[in-house]
Amino acid sequence: MVFKVTILGSNSAIPTIKRNPTAQIVNHNEHLYLVDCAEGTQVQLRRNRIKMQRINHIFISHLHGDHFFGLIGLISSMHLLGRKKDLHIYGPPQLEDILNLQLEVSLTVLNYPMIFHPINPDAHDLIYEDANLTIKTIPLKHSIPTCGFIFKEKKGKRKIKKDAVQTYNIPKDQMLNLKNGEDFIDEEGNRIENKQITDDPFPIRSYAYCSDTNYYEKIIPLIMGVNLLYHEATFTKDFEEVARAKFHSTSADAATIAKKAGVEKLLIGHFSTRYETVDQLLDEARKIFPNTDAVTDGNVYEIE
Amino acid sequence: MVFKVTILGSNSAIPTIKRNPTAQIVNHNEHLYLVDCAEGTQVQLRRNRIKMQRINHIFISHLHGDHFFGLIGLISSMHLLGRKKDLHIYGPPQLEDILNLQLEVSLTVLNYPMIFHPINPDAHDLIYEDANLTIKTIPLKHSIPTCGFIFKEKKGKRKIKKDAVQTYNIPKDQMLNLKNGEDFIDEEGNRIENKQITDDPFPIRSYAYCSDTNYYEKIIPLIMGVNLLYHEATFTKDFEEVARAKFHSTSADAATIAKKAGVEKLLIGHFSTRYETVDQLLDEARKIFPNTDAVTDGNVYEIE
Repeated sequence: MVFKVTILGSNSAIPTIKRNPTAQIVNHNEHLYLVDCAEGTQVQLRRNRIKMQRINHIFISHLHGDHFFGLIGLISSMHLLGRKKDLHIYGPPQLEDILNLQLEVSLTVLNYPMIFHPINPDAHDLIYEDANLTIKTIPLKHSIPTCGFIFKEKKGKRKIKKDAVQTYNIPKDQMLNLKNGEDFIDEEGNRIENKQITDDPFPIRSYAYCSDTNYYEKIIPLIMGVNLLYHEATFTKDFEEVARAKFHSTSADAATIAKKAGVEKLLIGHFSTRYETVDQLLDEARKIFPNTDAVTDGNVYEIE
Repeated sequence: MVFKVTILGSNSAIPTIKRNPTAQIVNHNEHLYLVDCAEGTQVQLRRNRIKMQRINHIFISHLHGDHFFGLIGLISSMHLLGRKKDLHIYGPPQLEDILNLQLEVSLTVLNYPMIFHPINPDAHDLIYEDANLTIKTIPLKHSIPTCGFIFKEKKGKRKIKKDAVQTYNIPKDQMLNLKNGEDFIDEEGNRIENKQITDDPFPIRSYAYCSDTNYYEKIIPLIMGVNLLYHEATFTKDFEEVARAKFHSTSADAATIAKKAGVEKLLIGHFSTRYETVDQLLDEARKIFPNTDAVTDGNVYEIE
């Protein structure tokens, strides 16, 4: 089951020719989730050959422009290109007013249902769920109400071993019980232990997205042990005071959180435009948490 | 005195990798005027090496997203990059609400004065004036209130001939009178005709921007004889019915208007994304009005 993150924007604040501001596509089981949507995101989708109409769920972390100014354009393009199916948007309540006002002034009645789900950025709420995945909010510490999102697979079913069906002559109607961990009683009444018939399920995988935020230890228990953590790292250590004042993080902050939360891998992004290269940001993070990557627009990270 | 138009976006409706939606920079006498501001305009400015902070006046023709979704991002970036000087925005009244709402939710108080000038798209009003230039609205025929803009130089002063000052021993305090067309009385009381001392002023140059609009003959007297006309041409002739229904023009419509208005040169743009190349659009226009160009992002047109 595919689980990967495509970076559509890695800059903070301002779009440049090289780096777009924040947007990401999380692909879980071929369902596409858009996380934040800066100006230019729809072109970034084209550039990365991701079909915009495949996106059914959009999550907006907060109402700073570099995280949502591209949303109204994406919604409009989906409309102009003939979308019919539901689009679910999760974000701060005022976002709905902003979208509706802009649709009203252009006398646009969308061809498709746009379903807005207001979120409470101060809570750790379950906001999305399907058979295989949950998405919860992560309260962050920023200058306006802001939350991250954690994507976590549900506990998988046990996998029936290749030859077991034939060996034990297992009828179809017993399969689900076995996948759920029950033992098998064969036709002669023999009990065969579940472990003999099934393998352990795939481990539960998870991805946490934390942008924008100051250094904030309260998120640690919420993201403990995730496979992949994206944590903003707007500044280098020499701008730590600026970072604190602007409710942003240094790359050392991001790495410290990653280390304390025992995550597998850290991605840093949301870089200040002051940095021509990200070398210093990455070096400072890796000294604390070696398994760190600095993201670039177009990067894809698979969660194995 | 420079007078040129830089095309920042030539597509209609949807941003693609090749073509941005509508935005243009009119440079008159090194004053930069931004006309419409689709999503991605601020990156197009960077790509064309035009400094955003040099723009002091922005004109929005109407509230369809492909003409203004990039404005809030541009305003925000000007703020984040430390702008202090006034920014004047001219557009439909509801635009002010849209901008203010988005600034409010992000708790943004701009570093600079943003001065909003509501325009009446149904009138032919003088909305801007300086020593050398006037800008007036042009009512257009579209599905929502929409206007174009005509940039027209003021009548210039007569130019004093190179040798006249020495030949006639003209004192400095007489110069302005001569530039204004008065005759010169020399020290001995001789009247020298103005024509002997001065040359005709530069001819008045003008640029008219008409997007979006159906074929609409009422604009003809307002744009009569302009040096350069930009007229939208969303469709080819075989989509004329679609053009009518959507309140857009074919390239033949644009060319017919150009011909009837006796303009010098026609630019067509705002092309539907259905067209891989603009050859057919251009051919159909040139059959009616030969001096036509189809614009592409990055094109610059000087008005001589």
